[in-house]
Amino acid sequence: MTMKAAFIGLGAMGYPLAGHLAKRYETLVWNRTFDKALAHAKAYGSRPADLSELGQADILFTCLPTSLEVDEMAHKLLPYLRPGTLWVDHTSGEPELARKTAQVLQEKGVSYLDACLSGGVAGAVQGRATVMAGGSAEDFARARPVMEVYAAKIVHVGPLGSGHAVKAVNNALLAVNLWALSEGMVALVKQGVDARLALEVINASSGRSNVSENLFGQRVLSRQFTNTFALGLLAKDLGICAKVLEAAGTPAPLLRQMREFFEIAKREVGSTDVDHTAVARLLEQWSGVEIR
Amino acid sequence: MTMKAAFIGLGAMGYPLAGHLAKRYETLVWNRTFDKALAHAKAYGSRPADLSELGQADILFTCLPTSLEVDEMAHKLLPYLRPGTLWVDHTSGEPELARKTAQVLQEKGVSYLDACLSGGVAGAVQGRATVMAGGSAEDFARARPVMEVYAAKIVHVGPLGSGHAVKAVNNALLAVNLWALSEGMVALVKQGVDARLALEVINASSGRSNVSENLFGQRVLSRQFTNTFALGLLAKDLGICAKVLEAAGTPAPLLRQMREFFEIAKREVGSTDVDHTAVARLLEQWSGVEIR
Amino acid sequence: MTMKAAFIGLGAMGYPLAGHLAKRYETLVWNRTFDKALAHAKAYGSRPADLSELGQADILFTCLPTSLEVDEMAHKLLPYLRPGTLWVDHTSGEPELARKTAQVLQEKGVSYLDACLSGGVAGAVQGRATVMAGGSAEDFARARPVMEVYAAKIVHVGPLGSGHAVKAVNNALLAVNLWALSEGMVALVKQGVDARLALEVINASSGRSNVSENLFGQRVLSRQFTNTFALGLLAKDLGICAKVLEAAGTPAPLLRQMREFFEIAKREVGSTDVDHTAVARLLEQWSGVEIR
Amino acid sequence: MTMKAAFIGLGAMGYPLAGHLAKRYETLVWNRTFDKALAHAKAYGSRPADLSELGQADILFTCLPTSLEVDEMAHKLLPYLRPGTLWVDHTSGEPELARKTAQVLQEKGVSYLDACLSGGVAGAVQGRATVMAGGSAEDFARARPVMEVYAAKIVHVGPLGSGHAVKAVNNALLAVNLWALSEGMVALVKQGVDARLALEVINASSGRSNVSENLFGQRVLSRQFTNTFALGLLAKDLGICAKVLEAAGTPAPLLRQMREFFEIAKREVGSTDVDHTAVARLLEQWSGVEIR
Repeated sequence: MTMKAAFIGLGAMGYPLAGHLAKRYETLVWNRTFDKALAHAKAYGSRPADLSELGQADILFTCLPTSLEVDEMAHKLLPYLRPGTLWVDHTSGEPELARKTAQVLQEKGVSYLDACLSGGVAGAVQGRATVMAGGSAEDFARARPVMEVYAAKIVHVGPLGSGHAVKAVNNALLAVNLWALSEGMVALVKQGVDARLALEVINASSGRSNVSENLFGQRVLSRQFTNTFALGLLAKDLGICAKVLEAAGTPAPLLRQMREFFEIAKREVGSTDVDHTAVARLLEQWSGVEIR
Repeated sequence: MTMKAAFIGLGAMGYPLAGHLAKRYETLVWNRTFDKALAHAKAYGSRPADLSELGQADILFTCLPTSLEVDEMAHKLLPYLRPGTLWVDHTSGEPELARKTAQVLQEKGVSYLDACLSGGVAGAVQGRATVMAGGSAEDFARARPVMEVYAAKIVHVGPLGSGHAVKAVNNALLAVNLWALSEGMVALVKQGVDARLALEVINASSGRSNVSENLFGQRVLSRQFTNTFALGLLAKDLGICAKVLEAAGTPAPLLRQMREFFEIAKREVGSTDVDHTAVARLLEQWSGVEIR
Repeated sequence: MTMKAAFIGLGAMGYPLAGHLAKRYETLVWNRTFDKALAHAKAYGSRPADLSELGQADILFTCLPTSLEVDEMAHKLLPYLRPGTLWVDHTSGEPELARKTAQVLQEKGVSYLDACLSGGVAGAVQGRATVMAGGSAEDFARARPVMEVYAAKIVHVGPLGSGHAVKAVNNALLAVNLWALSEGMVALVKQGVDARLALEVINASSGRSNVSENLFGQRVLSRQFTNTFALGLLAKDLGICAKVLEAAGTPAPLLRQMREFFEIAKREVGSTDVDHTAVARLLEQWSGVEIR
Repeated sequence: MTMKAAFIGLGAMGYPLAGHLAKRYETLVWNRTFDKALAHAKAYGSRPADLSELGQADILFTCLPTSLEVDEMAHKLLPYLRPGTLWVDHTSGEPELARKTAQVLQEKGVSYLDACLSGGVAGAVQGRATVMAGGSAEDFARARPVMEVYAAKIVHVGPLGSGHAVKAVNNALLAVNLWALSEGMVALVKQGVDARLALEVINASSGRSNVSENLFGQRVLSRQFTNTFALGLLAKDLGICAKVLEAAGTPAPLLRQMREFFEIAKREVGSTDVDHTAVARLLEQWSGVEIR
């Protein structure tokens, strides 16, 4: 018996992931705009399918903008789903809504695993993504070998919702590191410090981070601000993180404040479609200096 | 003609640095508690000296608790200093006070370079410290070959005070990364996430930092909280960073707020002599959960 | 036909309010601890009743700790309620949960008005409370003449949930004014300013507030810290305010941060049962000075 | 012997104050733009004078933009000052710089009193200003009867610098109350609450302040935003307050954060010459709703 996979959502991440899947398994694909599904079929040998067919898959992947779209899709597919199917959600979503979706699926005998991704588009294309998954040990054990076709690191971080929660916290840390470094750099540059040299030294010191080592040089110092992760999406993730903090019931003045700053930044940079590194540019404007 | 060096302040960092110096140059040493100077002489072949002798050195290093002690030392040494001497200050100090000290020294024809260190005690012992220096290009060019006996990376980041400023910003980033990660981890753990696995995933993702990759595992997850960098000293550095921000005249809501949090933490943990990672423990108390 | 009223929740506020009601209308009362209901009957001529009788009232008041208790009571009373009854909720509650309760009641033909109180226990005793109500104009028009027996100011601020929302914002402002004044006063006193005189001057200036004019002198300067409004309850209200802000989808860095501070204060003062002015004492501890 | 007074700085506050003085004492006046001094002489019978004459006054008042201008004036007048003169500074200034100015004056035998004003232009015109003074009891006792010609409330709050400190804290409280109320109001209005009614209720409740009772209705709800106190000046005062907090060495996360917000607002509203209530408009923009 061969396993049948279905992949829903062929965006920047989903497209290459479904491609890796199709090389190994019989893979059905679905996308909001059908052309992309057709292109995928041509490129990787997958097969576009309608809801009734998707519902018959053994393992079903979603990679959609938010948990809302996943929940909608679950309700649409409900009539076609059969007991025993495993639903693996690669969306950067919300723990709470994911738990509701999982409950709906469970009534049909369908298991749900939230399995957030990191490593960016490059990692997905190279088949070296990172997966952080929440759910039962059994479901994780079933999904892991399938995900291995495109992921280099697959970690079961905790119960249902944990994948989303860890992803949201990770992205909040990214936001904090970016904002803090930007504040520091504008102040230094304003006083005559060379930005490139300051960054070089910080990267050899205790304050370094992925932001200082990679992001800041590539996008801010280069003045490229290449948009691969939109400010609006990071603000959304900070909102999810705020919900994770609320559910935990712990004081978290820094991460919550960071969300407020990004919400303000979103409004002040005039567009949510710019790269998240645009916050560095906002801090530059506030200080009247360019980081370089 | 052989160069004569003097090293003032044989603390955790200064002791090994002066040791490296003494292997290569004739080195006079001075310490507030004299026993340490004697021990150093025995260990490395340096020579304890009084102020009048120290003042005659060609190059003079200070590595003291704060800029206040450096300024006091400059005033005490003033009668003995001679034109042409270069004063290299390895203290984690304040740009503004350093500029005042430099002005006093300049009237005697003595140049001043602020040259902050990073890399910790381990880096100093292994002769692989990082130096971020502020001052004139000439003074930097003179000091660099001498510092090479104990530093692997020596960067001239900008004008007088820049070394202190970059160091203060670096340490503020350390503080931010530590606090933010602690907030995130307690919230995750409280909801059933495994701390070790969450950290493993974050370290493969965009939110990673030196804190997540090194500090947090070694000191927090291990429950060791080994004191190598006191909370009180990091709070002091956040205060210096606040002065740097003030001098720049730029809004910096995050770094300034971080200082307030550390000042509060300093008071609430009951001691300033604990390691700075004690803030993770404070956030644990606030949330009623242990990060593990 | 005489109107029959029911009052559920004879706490510090509810007890005197139900007393005013009983002087004018036939009034049934209910309290979690029955003794209080008996005492009320003796004092004001009200009559303790069970759920089935309460459900037959023409107008039904609740004044309970949180919206959760109100919602529970609504579900318990559901079998006994009859169409046409008006439910007036004096609880300091949550707009969102109140809207859910209202929906449940509506299915039984019962209208719901959220009608928060201010003016404190003194206002309730004197029959001079302030009411801020949310709901339909019709329901408000029906409830107003009844509430006039104990309220001097009754305002219809907006749709269902608005009463709770305005109350939560008001209490958040109280929290902000208290914290800000405390920060300012400890700093002034630490530098030799006389607290009583500083307060006198502020009260003649633009920074004055109810906190500076009344609360601070009576409870902080007097060193009484009389507990009439517990720190834990104010922290709860800041949490409700955070939900109001979330529902509005607007950046509100100050009010949200204030909630974090009160959550921290709640943990650091060692008890949630102290008066909310205990935050002044916490700031005194942090600064090592007493406000006087 | 009649007392001779001098008044330096005929701005919005100084002009009417010097007018009251001139009705009672022989009064010399000085202003940066001479025309205003001439107009004053015509209106009130004062007399424009040069530095050498001003320096001979028995009591000398300053009412200038910042402490910097006061200090400059002190240095300019130094050659002409004589022992025994009392310098009363009505500027909204900085404690630290005031103490330096006082020291310079003291060497000439001239006493200094920092004597900040509140009550606005209206209070000054009506001769009903409030004065908060810092300095010695003797100097205060000498100045009080003279200030009584234009002040209704005159309070000696503490040692030198205390007047400036209390004024800065008062204005920081004004800033906090304004920002907090604006955050709350936009959130309420966004959810259908009537702004005028919400304000009416808050003004009968514990969250009320001078801002809610007077400022907000007159300038924000009226959509007038009449400029009587510029945003840039309030931001400056928050900066002075930050110095007061720094000198006290106490954590003050709220007041310091407020300064950052106002510095950001100053940059985002596009002008520092708008009334400080413009921050309400900024919060309106961020939320996409108008407070009414």
